[in-house]
Amino acid sequence: MENSPLDKIAILGTGLLGTSVGLALRASGFSGSIAGWNRSAENAHQALKMGALDSVATDPIETARASQVVVLAMPIYSTLDFMEKLAPHLGSAHLVTDVGSTKRVITEAGMRLYNTPERAAFLPGHPMAGKERGGAELGDAQLFSGAAWLFTDVPGTQRSADGTALVQDWRNWVAAMGSRILDLDAARHDELVSWVSHLPQFLSTALSALLDEQVGHEPELNEVGGRAMREMTRLGASPYSMWRDIAYTNTEAVSHALEMLEQRLAYLRENLKTPELREEFERANRFRNGG
Amino acid sequence: MENSPLDKIAILGTGLLGTSVGLALRASGFSGSIAGWNRSAENAHQALKMGALDSVATDPIETARASQVVVLAMPIYSTLDFMEKLAPHLGSAHLVTDVGSTKRVITEAGMRLYNTPERAAFLPGHPMAGKERGGAELGDAQLFSGAAWLFTDVPGTQRSADGTALVQDWRNWVAAMGSRILDLDAARHDELVSWVSHLPQFLSTALSALLDEQVGHEPELNEVGGRAMREMTRLGASPYSMWRDIAYTNTEAVSHALEMLEQRLAYLRENLKTPELREEFERANRFRNGG
Repeated sequence: MENSPLDKIAILGTGLLGTSVGLALRASGFSGSIAGWNRSAENAHQALKMGALDSVATDPIETARASQVVVLAMPIYSTLDFMEKLAPHLGSAHLVTDVGSTKRVITEAGMRLYNTPERAAFLPGHPMAGKERGGAELGDAQLFSGAAWLFTDVPGTQRSADGTALVQDWRNWVAAMGSRILDLDAARHDELVSWVSHLPQFLSTALSALLDEQVGHEPELNEVGGRAMREMTRLGASPYSMWRDIAYTNTEAVSHALEMLEQRLAYLRENLKTPELREEFERANRFRNGG
Repeated sequence: MENSPLDKIAILGTGLLGTSVGLALRASGFSGSIAGWNRSAENAHQALKMGALDSVATDPIETARASQVVVLAMPIYSTLDFMEKLAPHLGSAHLVTDVGSTKRVITEAGMRLYNTPERAAFLPGHPMAGKERGGAELGDAQLFSGAAWLFTDVPGTQRSADGTALVQDWRNWVAAMGSRILDLDAARHDELVSWVSHLPQFLSTALSALLDEQVGHEPELNEVGGRAMREMTRLGASPYSMWRDIAYTNTEAVSHALEMLEQRLAYLRENLKTPELREEFERANRFRNGG
């Protein structure tokens, strides 16, 4: 990466993901400037203290203008909001990218607001990494190491030469952070993550809420509940603030996946004492054993 | 434990739990004899090779007679079967105990077949430890360290003096293995584990089977599915052979828990875009944050 022309990055949103991006860039050898901005300045100063940034910005638009790559690391509706705000102020020498968990709505906004030869480039991205709790202080230079980083770019986009070069630079840095890059169509992305990411989350939330009501006050709960309970409810700690936007921007797919699971649980419940239970365990075993 | 009169233990069933009991006893300083028997002799020889046993028995009844404590480490219906078979051959100088995951049926059998002054003592037990795969080769001396070990003994049982002493000895060894002992009523045990252990298992099985059908053949599955998917489906690898008996002996409680979860998922699904979703996340957060 020594000859990369990319040496000015802005990270807007310095929670867990934004801070981890800064730390991972540094750990991968990025020696340019990393400016950070956060709605609550406290998180940004924490990220600065941890070495994820080398400056804290007060004006996100001015900071974006002064950078080559702008990483939007915030919930989906905030990302959409900043995409609107930034577009008129940026030009063909800028790339904006994001880390949002649904991609159809963001990719559509990217096509509408960016990616003409005169405008900034936009590259929709989604690192499949996170923790059940957020905040700069949990930032981790290794968060993306070994994880997938999905891109849902639109083929044939008419970007400026600078924008195209920055897209390649950013993909190279993502690979340098240890991520496995995968390109997917945005609609297919949202469908696939509704099964493998969103369904597990909403399920863990429902299970945790149910257990809170049913056994939350049992004095023996922490003794009796073992690894199975802890593991299946870990995601119950995830914040509403992040998942609300996912529920809103992938409603149909999530709703379908939840309904299918409800039916599956009813089927299993009705077959607790029939041979169908064996077949259900065998299907589950097959999934875990990879085919 | 130096003066313990207990120095002859038989382990019937040398899968994951039976082998781990032998290894944990040795690691805790038990220096008496540990004889093991298994329906398939291969597992017993594996346990012997690993140091969990010092002899492999061919006749389980004779081996039980020659021991002071008999640990039944097998699925629930096999445990019930052996409780019937062993009772006429054992006497007041024997203790039989088990490791089964439901306790109402086993505790009832213990009251019916054991625990008179002339008969062997029976102590129903349930270590809250395991792995999603079984087999002697996964046996682990530390499996019970830090885990709860539940007993559902019936207060006021009229045991022989020898039987009473062996019960205390066995509880001491369980504590020496690093377990936290907890005494519960059998009905309460089955109710509580239906929520914190059986529901997570059947849920993970249903989720894994559903994902197998829906995305099992997607080429990008292993790239896109991250920690959330792997964690929520880990128990999907659990064997039917073990869970069938749990489904049969705790049907009502498991069925109720599953139905409540179905309703909870439907509620969440219907509220993906309403403020109720926030409340559901807050309940889930509360469960994880311990109140």
